[in-house]
Amino acid sequence: MQLTGEMLIGGSAVFGKAGAVQAIDPTRNAAIEPNFGLASDAEVQRACELAERAFDAYRDTTLEQRARFLETIADNIMNIGEALIERAHIETGLPKARLEGERGRTVGQMRLFAKVVRDGHWLDATLDSALPERTPPRPDLRLRKIAIGPVVVFGASNFPLAFSVGGGDTASALAAGCPVVVKAHSAHLGTSELVGRAIQKAVADCGLPEGVFSMIFGDGRQVGQSLVSHPAIKAVGFTGSRQGGVALMRTSAQRKEPIPVYAEMSSINPVFLLPGAVANDTAKLAQAFVDSLTLGAGQFCTNPGLVLGVDGPQFQQFIEAAAGALQAKAAQTMLTPGIHKAYTSGVSRLSGIAGVRQLAAGQGGEAVKSGCAAQAALYVCDSQTYLSTPELEDEIFGPCSLVITCRDVDDMKRFAEYIEGQLTATVHATSADHAAAAKLLPTLERKVGRILFNGFPTGVEVCHAMVHGGPFPSTSDSRTTSVGATAIDRFLRPVCYQNFPADLLPAALADANPLKLARLVDGTLVPPA
Amino acid sequence: MQLTGEMLIGGSAVFGKAGAVQAIDPTRNAAIEPNFGLASDAEVQRACELAERAFDAYRDTTLEQRARFLETIADNIMNIGEALIERAHIETGLPKARLEGERGRTVGQMRLFAKVVRDGHWLDATLDSALPERTPPRPDLRLRKIAIGPVVVFGASNFPLAFSVGGGDTASALAAGCPVVVKAHSAHLGTSELVGRAIQKAVADCGLPEGVFSMIFGDGRQVGQSLVSHPAIKAVGFTGSRQGGVALMRTSAQRKEPIPVYAEMSSINPVFLLPGAVANDTAKLAQAFVDSLTLGAGQFCTNPGLVLGVDGPQFQQFIEAAAGALQAKAAQTMLTPGIHKAYTSGVSRLSGIAGVRQLAAGQGGEAVKSGCAAQAALYVCDSQTYLSTPELEDEIFGPCSLVITCRDVDDMKRFAEYIEGQLTATVHATSADHAAAAKLLPTLERKVGRILFNGFPTGVEVCHAMVHGGPFPSTSDSRTTSVGATAIDRFLRPVCYQNFPADLLPAALADANPLKLARLVDGTLVPPA
Repeated sequence: MQLTGEMLIGGSAVFGKAGAVQAIDPTRNAAIEPNFGLASDAEVQRACELAERAFDAYRDTTLEQRARFLETIADNIMNIGEALIERAHIETGLPKARLEGERGRTVGQMRLFAKVVRDGHWLDATLDSALPERTPPRPDLRLRKIAIGPVVVFGASNFPLAFSVGGGDTASALAAGCPVVVKAHSAHLGTSELVGRAIQKAVADCGLPEGVFSMIFGDGRQVGQSLVSHPAIKAVGFTGSRQGGVALMRTSAQRKEPIPVYAEMSSINPVFLLPGAVANDTAKLAQAFVDSLTLGAGQFCTNPGLVLGVDGPQFQQFIEAAAGALQAKAAQTMLTPGIHKAYTSGVSRLSGIAGVRQLAAGQGGEAVKSGCAAQAALYVCDSQTYLSTPELEDEIFGPCSLVITCRDVDDMKRFAEYIEGQLTATVHATSADHAAAAKLLPTLERKVGRILFNGFPTGVEVCHAMVHGGPFPSTSDSRTTSVGATAIDRFLRPVCYQNFPADLLPAALADANPLKLARLVDGTLVPPA
Repeated sequence: MQLTGEMLIGGSAVFGKAGAVQAIDPTRNAAIEPNFGLASDAEVQRACELAERAFDAYRDTTLEQRARFLETIADNIMNIGEALIERAHIETGLPKARLEGERGRTVGQMRLFAKVVRDGHWLDATLDSALPERTPPRPDLRLRKIAIGPVVVFGASNFPLAFSVGGGDTASALAAGCPVVVKAHSAHLGTSELVGRAIQKAVADCGLPEGVFSMIFGDGRQVGQSLVSHPAIKAVGFTGSRQGGVALMRTSAQRKEPIPVYAEMSSINPVFLLPGAVANDTAKLAQAFVDSLTLGAGQFCTNPGLVLGVDGPQFQQFIEAAAGALQAKAAQTMLTPGIHKAYTSGVSRLSGIAGVRQLAAGQGGEAVKSGCAAQAALYVCDSQTYLSTPELEDEIFGPCSLVITCRDVDDMKRFAEYIEGQLTATVHATSADHAAAAKLLPTLERKVGRILFNGFPTGVEVCHAMVHGGPFPSTSDSRTTSVGATAIDRFLRPVCYQNFPADLLPAALADANPLKLARLVDGTLVPPA
């Protein structure tokens, strides 16, 4: 498919009227064809208005229609074929195998949400019977969840497929019955056009109103503010920097009608190595840590940016082994020149902090000089230094981690109490460590959305029990997840139907239970007959 | 029980050090004994710190322990006996029968939440099995909801029992496992002390940490900001004015870590009378409307402040009948001098708006002159006037309603599209009106949290299917309800446990399912064995 640089506004393809940009090949740090037109304000307005106009019809589709739409999107993305992997590889510098895996996850997500839609568990169908004899009489009351309204999705830089135009936020919002306006990320414009056209075609294939999906290009700040301010928009999904997420939260708070902003922002994902685990297989543990840290050039929200252990000979041995493993790691191309620059300046800032010592650097070489390749880095400080140096909490996005030497497990717990909210925390423990782990867990539960044992936080499974979310600043809303089946809940709100005539009740709440849902009836969960 | 005017800070009773106030008897517009001490900043800090300190132990109580605690609160409130009704009657001017009913609702709420806690449905227990053979292997992932943290609850003026110190917000937060700090409403200080002591005693009776509950008195604005700004506080429940709710939303947005604010603020609850229903039993309909409007001096969040009909002889007949019914209504004492003043100034502002005509006033007499009694009022204008006069959207809290004459059902739909978010909308319809109702419903679903047929919105049932919430400005967060079983969801957040050793897993997620929960296992809802 020939890229045109056009935005997709409802059923139309439109070359944006507010200037043009090109994508960057980060391996060469060079612009690539074609030009992409940026959205004017009128074009932003048009996308939002179409979404608003499509909303009632789209949310009124049957569960089956909506599930098929999601499956059609998955099929259409697969049908792009090798051209998608090829373009994403050039635009992001990510290896093709990784992109193929990510494509699998992306279409897998769409299909999971098709299943979620069909199951109808998300409708939270709840019925309380009338009690006409009671004083006062109780009316007939029934509750279901409905879609919240049109949603703006900001594509993430680090998952050009799985958290971008056709990614998790888009899938969960469409599943909920919300039209979506995507602001494509400038780090992969061509990839965005390809996926956007696959979704646009799915809208047409399924005979849905054109406003169900639009995708625009634009200068992040201005177009973003304009989208989030539009009165038709009722929720926002965002993955990116803390600064960017906080700006969107402010924009929402200033609206006449504030709306939910689901921003996934910043996390340093502490890994607590308890003494038994460190002693157990020190070299293997160190290698596994460094592999997780450097995976995908460290460009994951769940990258292990902090590793804590109780100081002593065993932990020093772990540190040495980790330093050795890191030195062997080749430099890897980062996603964009901007991310690369932020990484190198973050690492050099770390080097300048009193009490922080560099342990090791990964391989450098030609790639680091010519393009956007990053050298992995490992630093160490003691817990006291960390607790008295607030800037150490700033995420350095990339393959850099800080080892923290603690005095004992109580010191680890104090550390856990001190840090801000995180997406994940990890505990490495043998059974001899369980008492110590039990001490840490209540604090970790308050601080993070996912706690792992004896693994590493990179690799986020898309399933029902996943929580990819956590207290601020890891996300703007700890009550939700952006990965997994329950991500649909972000885009729903409850409506109660009181004394409704049978012919006007939504199908989910009809007496005969035509959707065959498990429903809460008078407080008891009743499986479908 | 002798009132002392003391605040309850954990297990202590403390006379606040920042000045003193008395309660007001609104029937006589006169201060009554004793003095109540207002919270200094140190006292606010102390309450929040105790809540923080109690949090881990309280959220770790078993479901049975927590349920019994809620039941003990209910028992202790009942044990106050007649003194509670007596004091609430003097402080609020509400009739004793109403207060007895409200007490029943209050303890009923506590007992409902005890049942909700025991059921454990709110834990959302979800298990995804490990798939070790898959490439890449899937870890074992389990999700449960946990309490969000200490919660500040602002007592509402209009429900001195059911939405105050021991009201719905307190019940649902305690049920979720959150310690609560209540800011008592100045409209019923003695009632607050009585209920507060009943809860404080329940904390001791159940052997819970003292910080589970505190109650403070204070100047609304300053103490409120101070409470909501405290880093230990993780969520806020509020029922009151739009101005007050919006101020708390702003305070939260300015925190280092923004927190959810559940503010229930402002609603005018439109009632759509479709032509068949108006023709059906005009006089009875008019009487039912006026009864709902004047119930409790109109001091309900769900008071029907707008009534719409298609203009014509039948609707004019309804209007005349309503005016007649209203004229017969006696004046009723309002809750506070401030509310009374706001009501009379709201009504007089309405009288001055071009195109708005007074239809009727309720009875006046001596009560209106001497105390805080309000005269009911009914106004009329056409839909065009309403749509071109934004100030008509401001809620007038009290027994005043505005009749809107529409040209036809399409005009009603335009009207529904125009208005802001509401708690409720009501449709009166015979079966001949169902086609017209079906036209209105998609708009009403987008605008409100509860839609009623052939009833009136006052009288909010506490059950599983209730939604007392709605789009802004009726509440700050349309994703939730403040009345009914699912109000507990406001104070929960999900945590995922990955590859946890069996001995460290929470009981809700243990293989043997010791809590006997219905759980979602690999995407399928599995009832307890």
